[in-house]
Amino acid sequence: MDPAVANVPPMKDLTIDNITENTVLINSQSSDQRLTYVMERLVTHLHDFARETRLSTSEWMAALNFLVRVGQISSDVRHEFILLSDILGLSLLVDAIDHPKPPSSTEGSVLGPFHTHDPPTIGNGASMSSDPKGEPCLVVCTVKDVQGNPVEGVKVDIWETDSTGHYDVQYKDLESPDGRCVMRSDREGGFWFKAIVPVPYPIPHDGPVGQLLKLLKRHPWRPAHMHFMFEKPGWDHLITALYIRNDPYETSDAVFGVKQSLIVDFTTASPDEAKKYGVEEGSKILKHDFVLVSEEETSKLRDRNALEALARLGRKVKLIDHLPVPDLD
Amino acid sequence: MDPAVANVPPMKDLTIDNITENTVLINSQSSDQRLTYVMERLVTHLHDFARETRLSTSEWMAALNFLVRVGQISSDVRHEFILLSDILGLSLLVDAIDHPKPPSSTEGSVLGPFHTHDPPTIGNGASMSSDPKGEPCLVVCTVKDVQGNPVEGVKVDIWETDSTGHYDVQYKDLESPDGRCVMRSDREGGFWFKAIVPVPYPIPHDGPVGQLLKLLKRHPWRPAHMHFMFEKPGWDHLITALYIRNDPYETSDAVFGVKQSLIVDFTTASPDEAKKYGVEEGSKILKHDFVLVSEEETSKLRDRNALEALARLGRKVKLIDHLPVPDLD
Repeated sequence: MDPAVANVPPMKDLTIDNITENTVLINSQSSDQRLTYVMERLVTHLHDFARETRLSTSEWMAALNFLVRVGQISSDVRHEFILLSDILGLSLLVDAIDHPKPPSSTEGSVLGPFHTHDPPTIGNGASMSSDPKGEPCLVVCTVKDVQGNPVEGVKVDIWETDSTGHYDVQYKDLESPDGRCVMRSDREGGFWFKAIVPVPYPIPHDGPVGQLLKLLKRHPWRPAHMHFMFEKPGWDHLITALYIRNDPYETSDAVFGVKQSLIVDFTTASPDEAKKYGVEEGSKILKHDFVLVSEEETSKLRDRNALEALARLGRKVKLIDHLPVPDLD
Repeated sequence: MDPAVANVPPMKDLTIDNITENTVLINSQSSDQRLTYVMERLVTHLHDFARETRLSTSEWMAALNFLVRVGQISSDVRHEFILLSDILGLSLLVDAIDHPKPPSSTEGSVLGPFHTHDPPTIGNGASMSSDPKGEPCLVVCTVKDVQGNPVEGVKVDIWETDSTGHYDVQYKDLESPDGRCVMRSDREGGFWFKAIVPVPYPIPHDGPVGQLLKLLKRHPWRPAHMHFMFEKPGWDHLITALYIRNDPYETSDAVFGVKQSLIVDFTTASPDEAKKYGVEEGSKILKHDFVLVSEEETSKLRDRNALEALARLGRKVKLIDHLPVPDLD
């Protein structure tokens, strides 16, 4: 770009007191109002962070080197920046903002770094885990709308660790996906499958995020849970998990995912259930009814929440594509 | 860590409104008060950023994937996170906070991502560039204290690009350092060397930082400059640069480094100078006197600035190792 035509003020002699407004100005040349707003808030918060902490050069350099390590340990099967976002509470926050839930619907939880895109599709009754050391369990679920009507044909991603607390992708010699599957809800909104009883496990803590947790005297454990993700056009994308009651880490999840409404109990198979599902009488069953919200309802709720929250913060905004930008009119 | 002994409140049912205070609490178990304070401000600003922008899941994911790319393109000779910090004005800000300058001293500028630790040490009169296409120039400098006394034995790192605007480390087939050197100031505080006239150049823009600049409709250019770094025990570490007057990018430096006091002019060698320095009469000379500040003076100034700035921000702090932490007494 020819600097002579750049519509920005002279950038010279920038100081602690004027660097922010000038950086914001030079970042405001795009016609994308959302980008301009997001960058304005990002730069302001980053700079305020440095000013409020009087960040030293050596601290700043340590942070930048930490971020390089976070990027470099990441791979197709390990997203250390998601993990960092998780342990800082940012993932949970963004999910709560983007996927508001009406009272009767299923709450969301963190995606985590271990969702993959290649799990096998299985039918009702099949098993999604081949770990012989896992304690078998049956999982019987439905997907309904907030009025209680079944939702058919929902794509459901399910994933959990093996009995040692590791996801398939954490094994270097993995040949095919394990402990994960995709299912489709049937006409009654049902889907059921065989799995193993989830166990608590530490998030990967052999990398920079683990080092940070250690510095902060935080443990890396997550309570036992099974991940679920629901997708169907017209319905709000639901990322959630079910947590097994009375886990030792139930109230100290390293990534803040636990919600009371997502804590579940196992029951044991009655003679009828054993016969119906082809499992042994007395074996463990986990039953859960998930409730999806329509995209339209979520979108309205998200818009309303955004406008109300930003009004409370004293920010005059309007929504473009359902995302706030400053309202300069 | 045994969660039973973790001195933290139950972390469950976290929402947009309570996630921040809870994340801050669980991050406050270390005895390192500075770490606790820095994390508290970091988490608060990150969360406020998400709340004020109503950050969407897809924007958040795009940002995390961007950060992975920033980490992965980084190497021993390319620190893309420094570059990112540079273009966001954060590097200049941190330098200004950490290295306050009394009026008569040399101002700081950005380090940039191209300083290396293996340049050859050269003596007065030697050349630091072997580029035959560069326009030769002589650089004649002194290092003094604020009272005008020479400072002897200062380690001076100097680095610049070649005539095409590339640093040595940007060439894959580089065999030995070029366009960079280390010198020591002599008894009169002097050091002089042969170099080439600096040219403007774009910061590396073939990576994620370049993509961001493009999105923001910003150019990647830096005005012509030569980097200098001064180190001697007892003296505040000075990272600076000299900028050549009337560069087309003088007022739109992509990394905000230009300061009026660092803009310099070339003169031409008089007969006496030509003889003294062994250069051709009329050839270009750049003369500059650098002024260092003692570590003690800088430290006092930094402490005073920190306490004053945080008082203006309404934060009650005390200094531990010259860095602010909340004063809870």
